[in-house]
Amino acid sequence: MSAEPPALLAADWGTTNFRLFLFSADGEIIARHTANIGLKNLGVLTFEQALTSVMKEDFARPDLPILLSGMVGSRQGWREAPYVACPAGLDDVVKGLVAAPAAKLKVKIVPGLSGEADHPGLINVMRGEETQIFGVSYKTGEGVYVLPGTHSKWASVEGGRITGFSSYMTGEMFSVLKRHSILGDLMDNDIDDDAAFRLGIDRAMNDKSFLSLIFSVRTEALFGHIKPESLSSYLSGLLIGSEIRAESIRHGIRPVTVIGDGTLIGLYERALKHTGFTDVTRQNGDDASAAGLWAIAQQGRLI
Amino acid sequence: MSAEPPALLAADWGTTNFRLFLFSADGEIIARHTANIGLKNLGVLTFEQALTSVMKEDFARPDLPILLSGMVGSRQGWREAPYVACPAGLDDVVKGLVAAPAAKLKVKIVPGLSGEADHPGLINVMRGEETQIFGVSYKTGEGVYVLPGTHSKWASVEGGRITGFSSYMTGEMFSVLKRHSILGDLMDNDIDDDAAFRLGIDRAMNDKSFLSLIFSVRTEALFGHIKPESLSSYLSGLLIGSEIRAESIRHGIRPVTVIGDGTLIGLYERALKHTGFTDVTRQNGDDASAAGLWAIAQQGRLI
Repeated sequence: MSAEPPALLAADWGTTNFRLFLFSADGEIIARHTANIGLKNLGVLTFEQALTSVMKEDFARPDLPILLSGMVGSRQGWREAPYVACPAGLDDVVKGLVAAPAAKLKVKIVPGLSGEADHPGLINVMRGEETQIFGVSYKTGEGVYVLPGTHSKWASVEGGRITGFSSYMTGEMFSVLKRHSILGDLMDNDIDDDAAFRLGIDRAMNDKSFLSLIFSVRTEALFGHIKPESLSSYLSGLLIGSEIRAESIRHGIRPVTVIGDGTLIGLYERALKHTGFTDVTRQNGDDASAAGLWAIAQQGRLI
Repeated sequence: MSAEPPALLAADWGTTNFRLFLFSADGEIIARHTANIGLKNLGVLTFEQALTSVMKEDFARPDLPILLSGMVGSRQGWREAPYVACPAGLDDVVKGLVAAPAAKLKVKIVPGLSGEADHPGLINVMRGEETQIFGVSYKTGEGVYVLPGTHSKWASVEGGRITGFSSYMTGEMFSVLKRHSILGDLMDNDIDDDAAFRLGIDRAMNDKSFLSLIFSVRTEALFGHIKPESLSSYLSGLLIGSEIRAESIRHGIRPVTVIGDGTLIGLYERALKHTGFTDVTRQNGDDASAAGLWAIAQQGRLI
């Protein structure tokens, strides 16, 4: 434990995950904790009860300011923190901070961001990712950030502001097709097959119709071109490739920073390099959340 | 019942559906029957037992030739009838007829068709639809045929031959997204909302990225632009619109014949007309199957 006294409790609190950080006054992370109190796992607990339940040992500091980001600020969360419209910088996000109705704790919630989508009249939204993006970008104030996941985001940052972003249902599409469609039925004993993954990416990069292309998982299995254990890699390539293709068309090849953790980030790195994104940087998702929460807390003078 | 004596028993036997027809020697349909013996519902019955179980009353004619089309000829069916490559006419299909290993019945199975897909190295397949297409097209020998469904098909017929076709996972995609994704969770008390359906079609016709576009079901719900009861129509429009867009790009606007039944056909008719396909003819799917089975039986001299 650091010699510096604790000054801030902060957490990324999403639908599934909860990641808690204890900061010293100089922004050092004194302690980290994860807990199974994602929004969908709260059960009968109130948000304050759930939060209090994890504030033990190092984290037993109900006197400290608490800052939360993620779906905890959604309509289904603790208190809705209305979306702040892009372009948005740290100062705009701080203006949108909302106090949670806590009895004993001093809790502020980070608002999500909204931005215009490619289609007229359509709007993109994010909650939690904006904090990660600020966490990685606040020093340079520039860049393109890719956040793979259930609903992947690609965001542009200019002059310290998130100017716009796109959402892709890539992760959830993979999951529902694998678990609930005929395509998943054909898969068996999944392995990570790089050749099948690249084939999927290449085909997606030349895609003319998504609904037609993904059916090829079935026909490639039927004709024995791709083995059951490699079909999952192929589908993964088709989906990630479709996402990268759309971004390539929209914005061209650019240096990008991929923010996240685990196997998925590795897949995106491979896919990006395979499709010509030679300048790819990786950032740990946890660290990005922590750095973003700290930056917002400083900007908002919570500490 | 017709005065003509029965001459042929024929059925479209798929994964879910089984539709049986009794023909007179002049091709008149004497009787029709549907039964719940689709491939996935066979249970412990053999194919011959299942077929015999429905051959009652008018259909109690084990002496007649029997012709079957559909997934019954797949690898998971009674006996595999290998795909015949496009372009394929009735004569090619007849050459590909395969005898089923029946103990007491005289059964032949119609082969499916395979055709090159847009992507190099990829192959499309159909089973059962080829029979419906021949059933509708054998008189004129020309046309473009749309068969909406779980895996929709668009097929071109020239000079009496099915020259090629495309597959779209439209129906299954709708089903898995509605039942198993966050998009379906937002839907409630579905109504047929034509405005939402058309909005979905219009947006899909300008689609730049499928995975991004379908996420709009969520954001449109979030901002209250589309009500929970209309989101299903909107998603339906996005998916059918994506299919029509791909065909429009590939082949342009052409007169088309839609083959099928039920609500889905009505949706496709509306979507096609909305997107500029002004010359749309509808054909009943049952009648198309029956006419195709009859045409194949005649060409193959089964009767």
